[in-house]
Amino acid sequence: MRILLTNDDGIHAPGLMALYNELKGDFDVSVVAPESEMSAVGHAITLRSPLRVQEIFKNESFFGYAVTGTPADCVKIAVQELLESPPDIILSGINLGANVGVNVLYSGTVSAATEGAFLGVRSAAISLDTHKDPDFSIAASFSRRVIRFITESGFNNGVALNVNVPALPRAEIKGVAITKQGMGRFRERYERRVDPRGNIYYWLTGETGADGEREDSDARALAEGMIAITPISFDLTCTKEIEKLKGLSFPDLNP
Amino acid sequence: MRILLTNDDGIHAPGLMALYNELKGDFDVSVVAPESEMSAVGHAITLRSPLRVQEIFKNESFFGYAVTGTPADCVKIAVQELLESPPDIILSGINLGANVGVNVLYSGTVSAATEGAFLGVRSAAISLDTHKDPDFSIAASFSRRVIRFITESGFNNGVALNVNVPALPRAEIKGVAITKQGMGRFRERYERRVDPRGNIYYWLTGETGADGEREDSDARALAEGMIAITPISFDLTCTKEIEKLKGLSFPDLNP
Repeated sequence: MRILLTNDDGIHAPGLMALYNELKGDFDVSVVAPESEMSAVGHAITLRSPLRVQEIFKNESFFGYAVTGTPADCVKIAVQELLESPPDIILSGINLGANVGVNVLYSGTVSAATEGAFLGVRSAAISLDTHKDPDFSIAASFSRRVIRFITESGFNNGVALNVNVPALPRAEIKGVAITKQGMGRFRERYERRVDPRGNIYYWLTGETGADGEREDSDARALAEGMIAITPISFDLTCTKEIEKLKGLSFPDLNP
Repeated sequence: MRILLTNDDGIHAPGLMALYNELKGDFDVSVVAPESEMSAVGHAITLRSPLRVQEIFKNESFFGYAVTGTPADCVKIAVQELLESPPDIILSGINLGANVGVNVLYSGTVSAATEGAFLGVRSAAISLDTHKDPDFSIAASFSRRVIRFITESGFNNGVALNVNVPALPRAEIKGVAITKQGMGRFRERYERRVDPRGNIYYWLTGETGADGEREDSDARALAEGMIAITPISFDLTCTKEIEKLKGLSFPDLNP
């Protein structure tokens, strides 16, 4: 089985390497990942500048393509140019930090999986809920179960799985929950600073929390020690609202 | 009524100026837009570098804030820092080029509206279906109807409207359709070139079409001369798939 790995932390990130080392013995693994960190790039793609691709070898035990683009670029160029044929599965990660709630919108890791789903490849994003001293081993071994699940279940091509793993010892992980994307607001603000030349600049600061999240949300499940799996779609249509809008006859919307 | 304008073509783009000139006489209009073109940045936000904000004046008839960030950054910093209080409505556009089908995922214009919806402000993205010799007048005047619709209908805060206007004379526009995001694949590929120093680089090329699109899609409606309005959500959860996944008991997914 042919598996493509990518991420948004860049090709040299330990989370990607953990996934690579876990899977390379049993699968035909390719790596196409950003040359440098591309966090929070969302589903950006590169149109105004060309992409460059560099072959990366490490100690004869690692080979991958580093791309001067975003995670979505990496998936596109892997599937449409660099690989001989599309992979069977795309895994994006292991991301350093959870991708739950509206963070999913900003996440390059998740967007790579969404892009894969859009290109017709069954895809999952895997993130570990910590920014400090990450131990990727549980998330890496769990990737095997994600692969098995994707291949054995009647999993829909057009849907990506967003998998978030708590940073807990194995014995403390309470199980797996099928969840919804959390809808909680960030607690965020801009910090205003003055640079040495007297000019003002702003840093975005703040964090997402599981406070007030709906019960079946990714954020809540993760906070409760569960591995959270959310199926996500690249169809942003709000179907509920469609019927309502159609019900309004728009008499004054016709130009 | 307080209206915030933004876009992804940058603060100097004619599409933004058309919207500004249309609305400034009747509304309290603010502009917070990217300093330079930010097409295809999707829902990217800027975390690794700070944002800088510049006040732009033109002939005493225009004032706006230019931000060194993405459209989503512009909405965030406008709502949370630059404006005294959140606007009543956010309009993003008028974009040069349609934002239909999966292009919606990559669109900075649409992401600005989604970000607005997420921040609790009623928001719409407005795009004109042409890249050449744009006449923004119909789309600009239609923005008034969008504003009226948003304020008069029981329009849900958490939903953004993605409005696409055909580049046709007024008499040829057939009406308004409430649509779904198209799901058609791009006809895209990478063009491989060699630079003057002998290095290889790749350009993404190709286009979306309405071929094979579902009947109620934005792409189809637009191709048929309708103004397409799609309600879009920032909840990416694929609800249909949730029930299916929950039905599978995951015996081997528990670590």
